[in-house]
Parts: sequence; C-alpha cells; structure tokens
Amino acid sequence: MGIMLSFTHETLPQRVVFGSVDMLAAEVERLGRRPMVITRQSGDVLPGAVHHREVVMHVPVDVSRRAEAAARREEADVLVSVGGGSATGLAKAVALSTGLPIVAVPTTYAGSEATDVWGMTENGQKTTGTDRRVLPRTVLYDATLTATLPIDVSVASGLNAIAHCVDSMWAPRADPINAALAVEGTRALSAGLRDIRTPQGREQTLYGAHLAAVAFASAGSGLHHKICHVLGGMFNLPHAQTHAVVLPYVMQWNRKAVPDRLTDAFGPGGLRGLREEIGAPTALRDHGLREQDIPAAVTAILTVVPPGNPVPVTAESLTALLHRAWAGEEPA
Amino acid sequence: MGIMLSFTHETLPQRVVFGSVDMLAAEVERLGRRPMVITRQSGDVLPGAVHHREVVMHVPVDVSRRAEAAARREEADVLVSVGGGSATGLAKAVALSTGLPIVAVPTTYAGSEATDVWGMTENGQKTTGTDRRVLPRTVLYDATLTATLPIDVSVASGLNAIAHCVDSMWAPRADPINAALAVEGTRALSAGLRDIRTPQGREQTLYGAHLAAVAFASAGSGLHHKICHVLGGMFNLPHAQTHAVVLPYVMQWNRKAVPDRLTDAFGPGGLRGLREEIGAPTALRDHGLREQDIPAAVTAILTVVPPGNPVPVTAESLTALLHRAWAGEEPA
Repeated sequence: MGIMLSFTHETLPQRVVFGSVDMLAAEVERLGRRPMVITRQSGDVLPGAVHHREVVMHVPVDVSRRAEAAARREEADVLVSVGGGSATGLAKAVALSTGLPIVAVPTTYAGSEATDVWGMTENGQKTTGTDRRVLPRTVLYDATLTATLPIDVSVASGLNAIAHCVDSMWAPRADPINAALAVEGTRALSAGLRDIRTPQGREQTLYGAHLAAVAFASAGSGLHHKICHVLGGMFNLPHAQTHAVVLPYVMQWNRKAVPDRLTDAFGPGGLRGLREEIGAPTALRDHGLREQDIPAAVTAILTVVPPGNPVPVTAESLTALLHRAWAGEEPA
Repeated sequence: MGIMLSFTHETLPQRVVFGSVDMLAAEVERLGRRPMVITRQSGDVLPGAVHHREVVMHVPVDVSRRAEAAARREEADVLVSVGGGSATGLAKAVALSTGLPIVAVPTTYAGSEATDVWGMTENGQKTTGTDRRVLPRTVLYDATLTATLPIDVSVASGLNAIAHCVDSMWAPRADPINAALAVEGTRALSAGLRDIRTPQGREQTLYGAHLAAVAFASAGSGLHHKICHVLGGMFNLPHAQTHAVVLPYVMQWNRKAVPDRLTDAFGPGGLRGLREEIGAPTALRDHGLREQDIPAAVTAILTVVPPGNPVPVTAESLTALLHRAWAGEEPA
C-alpha cells in the first residue's frame, strides 16, 4: 500500500462551464450588471458592454493601471476576459486592485484562467503573486474559439499544458488529488492533440488544459518549470516551445517518480510516441538557445532546484541534460 | 473522440488535510479563537475548548436547536465536529443558522464532510438542502481515528462510498471531472478495503471516501441512490448495507455507461472480485427487506428515477432487479 498520506490540498471555488460563448451574457449576469470586456479581439464580444482593448503580453503595470482606471470610470462591476494568457492576466491585475469578479473566456491552452496566480511587469522586471481575488469566478470554455490557433502553436501550447500535469507529480505541494487530475488532464491533452485539427480534438485539449492548470496551481512549480523559467527569463526563449522541448528530458530524469497511470495516459508509445505523432518541437537551439548559454543557465537553475525533487540534480547532470535538450538528442 | 462536452462543474472551496489529529489545534486557530467541539466521544478532543456531546442520528431539529443555543451561549466562533455523519451533520445544522465555520474531523467513510448538503429531521420527516455555509472550511483526516470501526461496518461503509463514485457516472450533473475523481476514489477505496485491517488500508479508504463525496456532491443522485433512499426511507433498512447490496445490480443495469477505467479501478475481478474478497453483504433480505415489500418499493422508485439514466427503467425490470437484490442472486 505504500507510505502514509500527509498533505494539505486546497480546492479553489470556481464555476467551470463547457459550452458555447452564446452563454456568456447569462454567465456574466450572475455576477454583475455593468461588465467591462477585456480583449484584443475587434468585434463586440458582449453587445452593449464596454470593451477595453489595450492588452499587452506580460501585463505591463501602466497598461494595467489604464485598464483599472477604465473599469472605475465605467463603474464596471464585473470583468470579462476573452483571449489568451495576456487578456486573462490583465483582468487579474484589475481584479487584484479593485476586487471585481472575473468571467474568463480562454481562447488558448495557457490555463491562467484556472489559477489564482497574477503577474505584472515593470521596467523589464516581472512580479508575481497569488491572491484569491484574481481567481476567475466563472470560466466559460468554447472550443470553437481556439479554431484560429495555428497547429504548431496549438501543439506547443498543448505540450506546455502537459508539462503542467507532469510537473505536478513532484512539485513542492504534490499530492494524490493533484496527481489524479493531472493524469486525467494528460489523457485528455494527449487524445486532443492527436486530433487537434477537429473541433472535438480542440475541445479535449481545452478540457485537459483546464485540469492541467488546476493541478499545477495546487502543486506548484517543480523541476521542469524551474528550468524553463530560468531559460525563458535569461534568454527570452518562447514559453510554450521551451516547455515542449524540455519536458521529455525532465521526465526521463525523474522517471522513478512517474506513475504507470501517467505513462499510460499519453497513449501508444508514451510521451515519445505522442511527440512523434504530433510533430513536437525537439531542440532548444531551434528556439534561440545558444550552446555557450548553457553554463550560465546551469548556474542559475541550480539555485532554484526544488529541494524535494525525487532525483538529486548536480551541475554535471544538469549540463548534460541541457546539452541534449539544446541539440535535440534522445533523453538519457 | 466522442461527442462535444457540455457541462457546468462547480468546485467547492475546502482545505483538505491528511495528517494527524495533533494538527487540530493549529487548523482550528486559522478560523477562530473560541471553538465548540461537537462530538459523541467522551475525552477532550481539543483541550480547553467547550465540548457539546448531544449528538443524535439524523439530526433531530430540537437537538440542533440546543447545539445552536450552546454555541451562542459560549460565544463560539468556530465549530469542530469529530465523528461520523451524525456529528458532521449536527455541526452543519448549527452552521446553517449561525454562519460559523466548521473544521470537520471524520471518523467514518460517510463523506458528509466534503459536501454542502445538510439534513434535519422533525416528527420523522427528513428535510435536506444545500447551502455553502454548511460546507466545512477545513477537513482534517487522520486514519488512526477509524481504527475502532468494526471490519463489517468498514466494509459496508467503504462500499457505500464506492456507490458514490459509481453513481457519479450517470447522475444528473455527471461530468468528466466528477468521473475522474470518482475513478481515483474507486481505485483508492478498492485498494483500501482489501487492506482494511492495516493503517494504510484505512487511510486509502478514507482518502477514497473523500474523493467519492466530492464527486457525488457535484454529480448529484443517480439511479442507485434513488433506489436506496426509497428502500431506506420506506423500510428503515440500514444505510451502508443497503448501498453495498444494491450497487452491483445497478452497475450491471447501467453497464453500457460504465467506463473501462472504472472497471479497472476495482482491481482484479472488477466489483465482483472486490466484493468476494472483502466479504460484502449480498442480500437485502438479510438486512430487513421482506419479499412482499418489493411491489410498493417499485411503485415508489419509479416516481424518482432520474430522467437521464442511461438505460430506461420499467416496473417489470425494476421488480426483477429488486428480487435479485433481495435474494442475493447474481446481477442479470
């Protein structure tokens, strides 16, 4: 039966609706009468509502202040974000200072809509935190909204979501409830990505990305995310692609902590089979990392390796891992 | 890939701690300074705190009023329930009228601690409802507290929890998130019940019972629970045993809606193998149902069959099902 259980798991309150964006007005009315829509899209998502369209990646503080001012000026009592991580992130920044509830309508697989994590940037510095006020009260998922995402973006973004699931197995607050959600998320993401050209495939991917975010928000960042955050921050590598490339190396490294149920959830051939089938990105050198960057990355990553990682990490082993990921060699 | 997803899933906020009852004081302090403990146990569970020990099955209204009066008199600002469904239920009744937060410490596998359902009885009539105020804010699970439950009670209670999982597959608000939690709950319960004489087995059972209650609270009552509620209400049959006997018949009846993952989660031989291994109760006639009661039961059950049940239910088929369950014959 294994060792005794010892963990604390906090479930976050959220209304999660899988359906159609036609249901948006009704969902918004549950929470307020004066919605402000935050979106980069040009059409009127919610007819009659104020639309705030200055949405910028990484949520610059001044952009957030202008959105907040608009919400106060318009006397908005509910925020509606429609878009990817940037739109959700801006709504969260406004909610952090105003306390307004959010209805999130995600159009990518980023997963921010299912977490209480916020982030803002100022002078190139990113500040992040967690606050219950920024957790969207309602999330409305409609897979038809992801239909315009290019296939390669969908694949990288879906693999990024799978990385949320995998890292939940050994992150600082890993627990069996997170693991169960992560296994189901991996199953849905793997099936969905194999079928990403169909509406059903995109919907399964969206569903899996939701569970991935729930598990990840609860479990915290494990080794995989620590490595990717360092690489992204130091060398400005693209987020989803970096995660997609690094994942099989970390999974192989921590393989003794990968349960059979997770391996099975990838479908035929495991993660490797899935990656081959969907044409996953394979080498960090294709995405901006230079070989001479590796020593600096190793130094930085070693300072943030989670103490509870199931396998010890040394400068030597990490250097070898990053070399393979840089070159796109088989995980060792 | 199957049909498109269409569901609304509400996650309830709760802090779930698996650990030791030694952590109780610290968990209580997070929520209040003047706890009132509701328990049937004789010792002082929380030294220095007021202990209210009038706990009665089915939460009679007058018992609930006296507990509420005690809480007001003592100026309690947090309730601590220690016990099975009756202690949790009484704390919920007090929370319903006072709004006080609850820390629940369950000592059985009933699962009430993970739901926002309350119930009270007056003049033999049971009233139930759902209210967010009655959902315990924190649940502290310590499997050592279940060590005094007799084995046969543990088996019936654990199978009752498995019934929560199984019925989640086709209950009115069934959705894939509930199903994922229910499959993991079934896995833990099946493994735990096979090992119920060990601390680890009891802990797995407790963990599985938690997930079962979460899934069931979200999915609602399906055919199995409707049948058992009618039998229990009309003929005063014992709750857990009734569920334990009826489950295989309903599962066989709705077998086209039982996913392979659920079947696998029972372990070797499926539910049948599990039931044989752990000595499950097998016939309703052993638990107080008389053969001549069946027609009245059929009539009553037909009025409450959930419209979304995957297989139609007729008087004839239901009569046959109840006859088999009464006699303990193989499910057909």
